Amino acid sequence: MNAPLSPTFLAALGALLGDRLSTSEAVCRQHGRDESIFAAMPPQAVAWPASTDEVVAVVRLCREHGVPITPYGAGSSLEGHTLAARGGLTLNLQRMDRILALHPEDLTATLQPGVTRKALNAALRDQGLFFPIDPGADATIGGMCATRASGTNAVRYGTMRENVVNLRVVTPEGEVVDTARRARKSAAGYDLTRLFVGSEGTLGVIVEATVRLHPLPEHVMAAVCAFPDAHSATAAVVQTIQMGVPVARCEFVDPVAIRAINAYSHLTLPESPHLFFEFHGSEAGVKEQVDLVADTVAEHGGQGFEWAATPEARTRLWEARHNVYFAALQLRPGCRSIVTDVCVPISRLADCLVQTADDLKASGLIAPMVGHVGDGNFHVQMLVDEAQPAEVHAAEALNERLVRRALAMDGTCTGEHGIGLHKQGFLVEEVGSAGVDLMRRIKAALDPQGLMNPGKVFAPLA
Amino acid sequence: MNAPLSPTFLAALGALLGDRLSTSEAVCRQHGRDESIFAAMPPQAVAWPASTDEVVAVVRLCREHGVPITPYGAGSSLEGHTLAARGGLTLNLQRMDRILALHPEDLTATLQPGVTRKALNAALRDQGLFFPIDPGADATIGGMCATRASGTNAVRYGTMRENVVNLRVVTPEGEVVDTARRARKSAAGYDLTRLFVGSEGTLGVIVEATVRLHPLPEHVMAAVCAFPDAHSATAAVVQTIQMGVPVARCEFVDPVAIRAINAYSHLTLPESPHLFFEFHGSEAGVKEQVDLVADTVAEHGGQGFEWAATPEARTRLWEARHNVYFAALQLRPGCRSIVTDVCVPISRLADCLVQTADDLKASGLIAPMVGHVGDGNFHVQMLVDEAQPAEVHAAEALNERLVRRALAMDGTCTGEHGIGLHKQGFLVEEVGSAGVDLMRRIKAALDPQGLMNPGKVFAPLA
Repeated sequence: MNAPLSPTFLAALGALLGDRLSTSEAVCRQHGRDESIFAAMPPQAVAWPASTDEVVAVVRLCREHGVPITPYGAGSSLEGHTLAARGGLTLNLQRMDRILALHPEDLTATLQPGVTRKALNAALRDQGLFFPIDPGADATIGGMCATRASGTNAVRYGTMRENVVNLRVVTPEGEVVDTARRARKSAAGYDLTRLFVGSEGTLGVIVEATVRLHPLPEHVMAAVCAFPDAHSATAAVVQTIQMGVPVARCEFVDPVAIRAINAYSHLTLPESPHLFFEFHGSEAGVKEQVDLVADTVAEHGGQGFEWAATPEARTRLWEARHNVYFAALQLRPGCRSIVTDVCVPISRLADCLVQTADDLKASGLIAPMVGHVGDGNFHVQMLVDEAQPAEVHAAEALNERLVRRALAMDGTCTGEHGIGLHKQGFLVEEVGSAGVDLMRRIKAALDPQGLMNPGKVFAPLA
Repeated sequence: MNAPLSPTFLAALGALLGDRLSTSEAVCRQHGRDESIFAAMPPQAVAWPASTDEVVAVVRLCREHGVPITPYGAGSSLEGHTLAARGGLTLNLQRMDRILALHPEDLTATLQPGVTRKALNAALRDQGLFFPIDPGADATIGGMCATRASGTNAVRYGTMRENVVNLRVVTPEGEVVDTARRARKSAAGYDLTRLFVGSEGTLGVIVEATVRLHPLPEHVMAAVCAFPDAHSATAAVVQTIQMGVPVARCEFVDPVAIRAINAYSHLTLPESPHLFFEFHGSEAGVKEQVDLVADTVAEHGGQGFEWAATPEARTRLWEARHNVYFAALQLRPGCRSIVTDVCVPISRLADCLVQTADDLKASGLIAPMVGHVGDGNFHVQMLVDEAQPAEVHAAEALNERLVRRALAMDGTCTGEHGIGLHKQGFLVEEVGSAGVDLMRRIKAALDPQGLMNPGKVFAPLA
C-alpha cells in the first residue's frame, strides 16, 4: 500500500495546475491499467502539465516530497510501462501535443511529447514528407521515444533509435537538458539522446523530441502472398533481405492472425501463412524490387502474389495489419492478451519462428503470430482468460520458452515492446548481471532518489 | 609530473605480458604524440594485450594500483584522444586484430578492436560485402567505435552510431560486458552500445565489436564537378539532399584542397570549389540518381560533370580525397595541422561554409576545407608553424569562431572527430552545464576511480 500523498504536496500541485490535477478514483484507475495483463496499479493523482516549465515545477515538487512520477503518453504500451508500480503521480503528457517546428528543408520536426504518430503524419502530408515509425497503436512521440518503438517500416527506415535527432528532457532533479543539437550527426560527448531513447521514463521526462522525416516515396506498391507453411514464408524473407532489396515493409501474418483479420477487417484471405510487402522508390526502382521479390516468393512456393497498387487498397491492407491486435481480441471475446516480442539475427528467423509455431500449436492456446520479419522481429499475442490461472501460467511458460529460444540464437528478449514490468528477469539473462549493473549505476547516478517510473526495467534486488 | 609506476605493478604486468610490455622512452614517446598539435603526453608504459582475458587482468592490475589507462588503436585521432594526459599505461590494441566471426547471411562481422577498416574490407571483398565507415586514416574498429567515426559514406550508410550492432567491453572494474545481442534491433533496457560508441575510451575498453555490413552495390558511378564558388556548390548539395536522392558520397573540396590534391595525387583539376559524388544502386537506379544530380549541378553553375565509371578511375579519385590530409601538409613543409570539424543542419550549410571560407581568407592562414557536406559536416585543416604562437593563436581563434557559428545554427562542435582534449569547453556550450553534468555522473558511476582515459571529454572542474 502506498503512503497517501501529503496535503501540502497536493495543495502546491493544485495551485500550479488547477483543474489539470485530479485525484479522482476513476481517473487514477483509468491510468493504472494498460494493455498488459498486470493487475491494476493506479497512481494516487494524475497531472496534465501543459508546458516544459510546468513539468519542471511538478518534478521539483515531487522531488521535494519524495513522490514517484510515472510519465504517461497514449497508454498503449504492452509490458506495463505506464502502471504506477509505486503509486505517486502519473504525468499525463497528452496536452503537450503541439508541433513546435517543422524544418522540411532539413527533414526534421520538433514536437511536444503528446503528438501522436498519426497526428504528425496528418500534419506532414501536404509537405510531401512522412514519419515512418508505426507501432500498432496511435502512440505518442514521447512514449515511442521512451520505449524505442519501431513497427512495420523499420526494416527500411530504422527505429526510434535512428530517427530521433535530439530530445529535451527534464531530469529527475528538475533541470532541462537538450541531449544534442539538430545536426544529422555528432561526435560531441556521450550519446545522451540514445541513452534516453528506450529508457522507459526511468531517467527523466521527455518534453520535446526532434525527429527525422522522410520524403514520401514517389511510387509505392504493396503485395500480399500466401505460403504453404511458415518455413517457406520466412525463407522467402531471409532471401529477400540477404539480396539487399530495400523493402519498405515485410510482414509475416500467421493463419490464426489471418482468420482474425478476415473477420475484423472484412477480407477473404486464405487461412495460411502470409507475407505482406510494401515497396518504395521511383517507378523503375519499385519495379526492380518487385521483380526480384516476386521471383523469390515463387521460388519458395508463394501463391497469389496479389497487388494493391491503389492507395485505397493499400490503406485497407495496412489498416488490417495494424488492427490485428484488436482483431485478435475478437477471436475470444472477453479475453486479455499477453503479448510478447523477440528479435533474432535474420539467419535464425526461420528456426525461431517455426519452433515457436510448433510450440504454440502444442500449447492449445489461441495465439496469433505476426512479425516485422525483415528485421528478424516477431510477436505472439496469447489470448487468455484472466480468471484461469492455468491458462495464464501456460502462456507465461510459452513466453519464457520463446525468449530463451531467441536468446540462445543470439537474439533479444524484446525487439520493440521494451522491458517494463514483464521482462526484467530476461534482461539479466540477455546482458548479464554485469550489464544490468551498468544500467543500474546509470539509473542511480541520474535519479538518486529513484522517483522516475520506479519498479520498471530493473527487478528488485534480492 | 606523473608519479612513477610502482615496481610491484610493473613486475606483475611484466609477468602477465612478457615482452608485450614496454617502458622504453622511445616507445612511450611514440605513443604520446598524435596528429593533434598538443604537446607530447607520453605514458609511462605501453602494453600490447592479445586477448580479452589479458585486458581484464591489465585493467584489474591498474585499478589495484591506481594507474590511468589510455586505450590506443591506430593513433590517428585528431583531437588528442590517445595522449596519456595523466601518464600511466597506454593499452595498444593493435595485436587484437582478428576477425572473430563473419555472418554474411546476417550482414554482420564480429571483430577484435585492432582490425583496421581497410583490413576488414579486404577480407570482405570476396563475400560481396563492405563496411562503409571510412575516416581518412586506416583507423582501427575499436578507435572508430570510441570516437563515433563516420566519413564519406555516412550520408547514405550512417556513422558508427548506426553501424555498430553490439560491443564487448571491459569495464573500469575489470568486468566483461556484452552491450547487446546480434539482433538488428532491440528494446531491452538502456542502449549501452550507443553509450560506449563515442565515449572516447573514458568508460571502458572495447575488446570486441559486431558491425553491420552492406552488400557491395551492383553498380557504382562517381563524378567530379567544379563550381564558380562555394555557395553554388553547397546549394547544389542541399537541393540534392532535399530531393531525397540517396547519394552514397557527396564531398566538398575547396580550391586550396584541390591545389594540394593535384600536387600530391597528380591530378589536374581546376583550382575552384568542387563536389565529388558517388552513386550506388542497380544500373537503372544509378542512372536515375545521376540524371537528377546532373540537372541540379547544372542549375547551380557546375561545370565539367566528369565521370569516373571504371573502378580504377574511382579508386584514384577517392584515394586523392582520402589523402587530402597528408596532401595538405605538403602545402607547407614542416607545418603541423590544427584540424577541426563541425556539422550543421543542411539548411544552414551554405551559410556556415561560406562564412567560414570568408573568415579563412581574411585570416591569411593556409587552411584547406573539405566536407562530407551531404551530412552538413565539414572540416578545416589549418596549417601552422608550431614555433609561431601568433599563428597557433590565430588558428585557435578561427576554430572558436567556426564552432560558435555552427552552434548558433543549431549545429554541433564536432561531427565526427570527437571532443578529446580540444573541444571540452565547446561541449559545455553545446549541451549546457546540465547536459555535461549528466555525462560526468555517468562517468563517475562507471569509473569511480577516474582511471579510464582521464582528462578527456570533460574539462577539469574549476
